Amino acid sequence: MNLQGLPTPSLIVDRGKLTANAATMKARMDVHGVSLRPHAKTAKSAAVARIAAGESAKALAVSTLAEAAYFLENGFSDLVYAVCITPSKLDAARALLDRGADLKIITDNVQVARAIADHGGAHRVLIEIDCGEHRTGVAAASPELLEIAAAVEAAGRARVAGILTHAGHSYASRTPAEAAEIAEAERAAAVSAASRLREAGFQTLIISVGSTPTATHGRTFDGVTEVRPGVYVFQDLFQAGIGSCGLQDLALSVLASVISHNPARSSLMLDAGGLALSKDRSTSAFDSDGDLGFGLICGLDGAPVDGFAIANVHQEHGEAPVADAALFDRFPVGAKVRVLPNHACMTAAAYGQYHVVDGNSAVIDVWDRCNGW
Amino acid sequence: MNLQGLPTPSLIVDRGKLTANAATMKARMDVHGVSLRPHAKTAKSAAVARIAAGESAKALAVSTLAEAAYFLENGFSDLVYAVCITPSKLDAARALLDRGADLKIITDNVQVARAIADHGGAHRVLIEIDCGEHRTGVAAASPELLEIAAAVEAAGRARVAGILTHAGHSYASRTPAEAAEIAEAERAAAVSAASRLREAGFQTLIISVGSTPTATHGRTFDGVTEVRPGVYVFQDLFQAGIGSCGLQDLALSVLASVISHNPARSSLMLDAGGLALSKDRSTSAFDSDGDLGFGLICGLDGAPVDGFAIANVHQEHGEAPVADAALFDRFPVGAKVRVLPNHACMTAAAYGQYHVVDGNSAVIDVWDRCNGW
Repeated sequence: MNLQGLPTPSLIVDRGKLTANAATMKARMDVHGVSLRPHAKTAKSAAVARIAAGESAKALAVSTLAEAAYFLENGFSDLVYAVCITPSKLDAARALLDRGADLKIITDNVQVARAIADHGGAHRVLIEIDCGEHRTGVAAASPELLEIAAAVEAAGRARVAGILTHAGHSYASRTPAEAAEIAEAERAAAVSAASRLREAGFQTLIISVGSTPTATHGRTFDGVTEVRPGVYVFQDLFQAGIGSCGLQDLALSVLASVISHNPARSSLMLDAGGLALSKDRSTSAFDSDGDLGFGLICGLDGAPVDGFAIANVHQEHGEAPVADAALFDRFPVGAKVRVLPNHACMTAAAYGQYHVVDGNSAVIDVWDRCNGW
Repeated sequence: MNLQGLPTPSLIVDRGKLTANAATMKARMDVHGVSLRPHAKTAKSAAVARIAAGESAKALAVSTLAEAAYFLENGFSDLVYAVCITPSKLDAARALLDRGADLKIITDNVQVARAIADHGGAHRVLIEIDCGEHRTGVAAASPELLEIAAAVEAAGRARVAGILTHAGHSYASRTPAEAAEIAEAERAAAVSAASRLREAGFQTLIISVGSTPTATHGRTFDGVTEVRPGVYVFQDLFQAGIGSCGLQDLALSVLASVISHNPARSSLMLDAGGLALSKDRSTSAFDSDGDLGFGLICGLDGAPVDGFAIANVHQEHGEAPVADAALFDRFPVGAKVRVLPNHACMTAAAYGQYHVVDGNSAVIDVWDRCNGW
């Protein structure tokens, strides 16, 4: 089987690029002497997680309890569910503990901390710190930090296990220096919150930070126990745009077919639209550098065609303006192309599986994904 | 089981609203004396299609060959695959014919028409007409129309079955009068193209038009054999915004939990983000009327809370600015809400199933969906 024989749209991952991205990040963490806990939310795939974590590693971050169950079944037992828990999800969390997961849950709320304590499960809790993104989390210096910790342990069974923070605002950085500055704020917030917890007599086994830009550009991770980047395994046009990687590192693409030509309008249509690519327009932040639209079009070899992007999407249609009429000859109706996505996490979520290549068009494997909740 | 007991995020459909939306459209088509071929791309669900088409009806439009196979298995044999076919998809189309589907495929391209003829299958082909959207399709008056028809029938086995057009530009209408004008252009393009085909000796058994706005506001469908609206079964914030329905007609919502409060930032966070809602921002066209963001938040009863919308999304987080501090009391962390989506087709695609309610919070059924390709 090769790419020409696959139905379209299909989701393609280049194993060589994925492996190189994973190795680069692992080597960086090794240099810093800090553990890597890959965030599995991007690929949601046991095969990808094994490459990212290493064959014998068990530690992942996940974004849904469905992922936690899936990865536990696939041998990953050391799991951080890195989205604030709610009381009604505690039964599901305890069921995972009962099945052998070393699951850590997170919260930033005293009422939820009380519910965790009252639930009676042997929950292990990371307290979420806001290091500047202002999404979730309490300030490292806030009274709530110690109130939450005390509430978690009030009933004697649930325990505080440490601190978690995520510098999502690193996505607004545009240079390595800006990302490094945010990484330092992320590190400092986690370490100072952990100090306060420790001084108050709570455990800080885990001091967890991470995003792809801060993991890539952070100058030190002193005092941190682990780093949780996610999208780096695939990278994408947005990460290339902010300097987390080069365009040649993008491991994920969507295989699509040309379904219509319109020379009068100087455009052609692909069978990859809003569902196949997602409607993510994060790269609009870079529109002054050339509009990447909903994805950059490549030949079947994965090499981008300069300036050839999907400008508009409908549910199953993606429209690409054709600046050079020679592209109509190069890509006749029925031709297959590969589209590099703006945001790998969003695009991959439309698919149940990956078709795996390694530098050429031969499909060498099929990997599953764990979608939904 | 009721909504309080469901995990979040979950996809909720109100059967009463769905049934009313379906009945309204069916009655409108009956008044006009034209057949309704519901476009199943929105719900991708046999249960919804039975309500939309009527228990004994077999006719649907689909947007993927995966849908065609799924609906055939569920008793719908009269299918229009309403996205331009490519040569490499013809084997799959023929396999559906062999399994008993009365499948119609579409194209707007002479080379594809030749490939259809050469393929040898007993394909039935609708020629796609561009009635003003400028997405796909040939002009009704173009020479290509007859060239495509001749090419389809050149080998004697594939046959032309008629005309298909879609006035997708009706989504840019803002009044019933504007939608009615586009509906007339859609009708006129289909009828005139069909006349040319008929005069040239080709079959025009099917003269197919449709979009929800043009089906809703069209003044006449004279000369047309069928209408293919899709999103009307659920409606959504965008359709309400352009006048296809009222806000009270929206049958689809996402059940979500409050996972974090931030009174200092006057915002709260839901566990429904970019994956659970999609990143569709079609309602940004109406931002001057009050920003609907990524979805409008309702109580568990489905009643919208005025001005309470999701302003920002991350993969699993949706952030709602809180204008009135009383909302923190009304929606504590752990509370469940329902979110009305901008674009039902995009949002529903993140889920494998619907949880069905009927005017209250009791979950009375679970319906599957056919995602992917």
